[in-house]
Order: sequence, then structure tokens, then C-alpha cells
Amino acid sequence: MQVLKTIEELQEVRKNLTSSVGFVPTMGALHNGHISLIKQARNENDVLIVSIFVNPTQFLPGEDLDAYPRKDEADKKICQMCKVDYVFMPEISTMYTKEEVLVKAPNKSYILEGKTRPGHFDGVLQVVLKLFNLTQPTNAYFGKKDAQQLTLIQQMVRNFFLPINIVPCDIVREEDGLALSSRNIYLNPTQRQDALLISKSLYMAGSVISKGERSVKVVKDKIYEVMQTLDIEYVAIVDREFNEIEIIEPKNTIILVVARFGNTRLLDNIWL
Amino acid sequence: MQVLKTIEELQEVRKNLTSSVGFVPTMGALHNGHISLIKQARNENDVLIVSIFVNPTQFLPGEDLDAYPRKDEADKKICQMCKVDYVFMPEISTMYTKEEVLVKAPNKSYILEGKTRPGHFDGVLQVVLKLFNLTQPTNAYFGKKDAQQLTLIQQMVRNFFLPINIVPCDIVREEDGLALSSRNIYLNPTQRQDALLISKSLYMAGSVISKGERSVKVVKDKIYEVMQTLDIEYVAIVDREFNEIEIIEPKNTIILVVARFGNTRLLDNIWL
Repeated sequence: MQVLKTIEELQEVRKNLTSSVGFVPTMGALHNGHISLIKQARNENDVLIVSIFVNPTQFLPGEDLDAYPRKDEADKKICQMCKVDYVFMPEISTMYTKEEVLVKAPNKSYILEGKTRPGHFDGVLQVVLKLFNLTQPTNAYFGKKDAQQLTLIQQMVRNFFLPINIVPCDIVREEDGLALSSRNIYLNPTQRQDALLISKSLYMAGSVISKGERSVKVVKDKIYEVMQTLDIEYVAIVDREFNEIEIIEPKNTIILVVARFGNTRLLDNIWL
Repeated sequence: MQVLKTIEELQEVRKNLTSSVGFVPTMGALHNGHISLIKQARNENDVLIVSIFVNPTQFLPGEDLDAYPRKDEADKKICQMCKVDYVFMPEISTMYTKEEVLVKAPNKSYILEGKTRPGHFDGVLQVVLKLFNLTQPTNAYFGKKDAQQLTLIQQMVRNFFLPINIVPCDIVREEDGLALSSRNIYLNPTQRQDALLISKSLYMAGSVISKGERSVKVVKDKIYEVMQTLDIEYVAIVDREFNEIEIIEPKNTIILVVARFGNTRLLDNIWL
């Protein structure tokens, strides 16, 4: 495994790769969710590049960029164990200059996860575009957990005609159904137990829909009912383009929930 | 020569090209300025792609997109004569969907040519990025005449890490010095004669600077003096990043002038 720090190193490496290249962009602090993406990418490509870069432009003023966990040495060991070929770990000054040409996400980036973080997705798309152009992957891997991010990246790839296959990866869960998150460790035992209601409500919704229910209102009410003891931030039912819908179209619907447990904010979703 | 209309046709062609690819993006209505770019690109690359696409997103509301000259058949003949391999002529609906991920040019896109056309350069960069991703050129050719456009495209290539060599091409001039422009035909004989003062003022500025003058103010005053009988829109002296400067640094300076002759607006510049 080779660790690359500069644009020149990465471009030199990329220039000499002729077979399929898999790419997994991360902000480091790798957990089992990342590892699952990396393993899938390892299986499906000849060469595997992972980037570890805490991207400043997706943090808003006031959000604590410096507090974001850095675990460079542990991350490198994980990548080595997963047989990653190249880890790209640039400095901020390597990735950005002072005043830049920017990427502007469409209006749907200002709802749900973007509602409280205006401009967040602009920064995500900007860094992903830069990383795509550097790594020129055949396949790039993103978790369905960050559903809105994934659909915006898919849209960018379509709009900009990037010759890249985006591979959406299923949410990894604990055995009892809780979606894996680095934030789960902040839950106390009671919260950990209560948090099961999130995935339970989504499974219930999936089951009700598979039995024929098509009304978004009815399904939402049932989700709220299951999670009624929780501090729910939102429940949203959207199509794959993240347009809010009223009638559920199976195979084109995503159900998303966010609930708070003290200061801990947990996301989950299912793709029908 | 093959005329390509769809994304799929172009991507299929591009996939099978392994040698150097030259690319000249145009809005059609090809004149000698374009032909000079095309000939240079033909000389320097194994394969040559020219795009002809009147890009709606670089026209502002109120600017007459429909009035922009279309000369598809004549353009195709010119391309054939210049031994172009592929002409890409997409429809608007091929290039754009309803709500898109956008490109946002930096603040320097709002001065000079951008001052009266806010957002114009966003549209230019958006279409150029799309075309770059589709054609994946080794070398892409742009005229120095549109100096601000050229520097913004160079910046986009740097910021987005596009593996493309941008080739700035010298301004083509009539024998008497007038910069070639499709607008020159609108000049009456007196205006045509007066218009010579534009290039004359730039040559004079170049000569004064080569003799050691470094003050932007002094050089600007001399340019205004030479052009005093003209309706001058602006005279600007900037560095290659389009920052306005006070002291001239030879090899890092561009002098730009715009003058009006009735409804006809003529641009010219020199790169020191």
C-alpha cells in the first residue's frame, strides 16, 4: 500500500493505471460502514484508491472543523488490512487555493439535511468533483445512509457527464437493526434501546407498503406512531430525485428519518 | 468527418480514442479566428474534435439567444476543409436538464466583461466543463481575444484538477492590425479606419513598457490619449489572474480595451 500526499504523486500513479479503478472517498475515522464500502470496492476493481480528507468546505461557519476526529494512523492500518492499493491523504492547501471556481448544488440540497446546513452540499460536491478528476475512477462507492448526498452526487455525475459509475452501498446494521454510525457510541443503554424504534419504524413502513399502501400520509402517520416516544427531527418520503411525493411509487421511493437522543442525532433510511 | 449529435455517440467515439485528442469548443458561425484555432489543433493532435453549440446558459435574460447566428451547413463545410475528425453538434436538451448542479465562477468573473453580464461566465464554465468531460481532450484551444474567459477556464482546470492542457491562441489580426471579429463587418468605412486606433494604442503601450515604463497609470493615460477620439468602454491593465494592478510586471500583464462604434462593441488586448 502506498500513501500519496500530493496531486503530482496521485496524477503520476493514475496515469499508469489501465485496468478498473475503484474509489472510496472518506473523511477518515474509518468504522465498519467505511470498511464495508472498501471491501466491496476491493472485490469489484483491479486497483483500489481510498481518500482520507476532512473537507473544510462542507463545514459551515460555526461548525467545528477542528473537532472532527482524526485517526490517520489507525485509518492507514485499516486500509492496509483491507488491501487498499493507494491512500490519498492531502493537506487542505493541496486541495484548495484562495478564491476558487465553485460547484453549486441545486435547490434540493437546501431541504432535509441541507435545511440546517445551507451550502454544506456545495462543499461536498466540490471536493468530490476534485477527487473524481484526480482519481478518475471506474467505480466510486457511496453509502445509502447519506442518501441526500448520494443522490446529489449521482446528479452531478449525470449533469457534468462524468464517465464514472456510482455504486450505492447498502446501510450496514447491527444485528438488532440499528444503522451503524460513529455516533452510536454516544448513546447510553436506554437511548441505545430506544434507538431501535428507528429501524423498526422503517421496516414497518416497508412492510405496509409491500402490502399495498401507497399514501405517504398514512405511512408517515404509522412511522410517527412507532417512534412516538422519540425526539423526531423529521420523517420524509421522497422519490429518488429527492422530490417530496404524496403517492408512493415502489422502486422509486426513499423513506428517511432523523431522531435526536440528547445531543446525538441519528439518521436512517430505506430505499424501496 | 463524422457529425455526432448525442452524448452516447460522442462517448462511444471517445472511448475508443487512445492517442492525443485536440478539442476546439465553438458556438458556430465559424470565422477566420476559429479556423486559426482549428488549424493549430489539427497540427498538434492525432484526433481533432470541434463542438458547435450555442450555449443558452451564458446568455442572460434579455440577451437574444435566438438572434445568435446559426450557420450549421457552412460550419460543417469549414470543419471538413480543416480536416476535423468529429464535429459535436448537440441539441440544448441533450446538454441540459431542468434543474442542474451548477458551476460558479469566482468574483473576478464580475468585472470587465462580466460587469454588464453577471452570471455569463458561470454559464461559460458550466458548458465548457460538460464538454471537457465528454471529449476528455489532451489539448483544448481558446483564443486570447476572450482573455477573461480564457483565464477563468484555466482557473477551473487548475481548481478542478482537470487533466487537460489549455492552449491559449494568439489573436488573429487583419494586415493593418485590427483584431479579427465577426462584428467587424458592421463597421462603416470611417469606423473601420478609426478602429485601427485600438490596436495602435495597444502596440504603443507594449512599446512604452518594453522601454521600461512600469506605471499602470502612465500607460493607461497614454492609451486613452491615442484613443481619445473613440467611445471607450474600458481600458484595464491586469495580471494573468485578472487582478487589477498598479505596477506592470512584464510577462504577467494583460492590457485590455473595449471601444464602441455605434452599436458595435470591439474588444482587443495584448498579453505582455
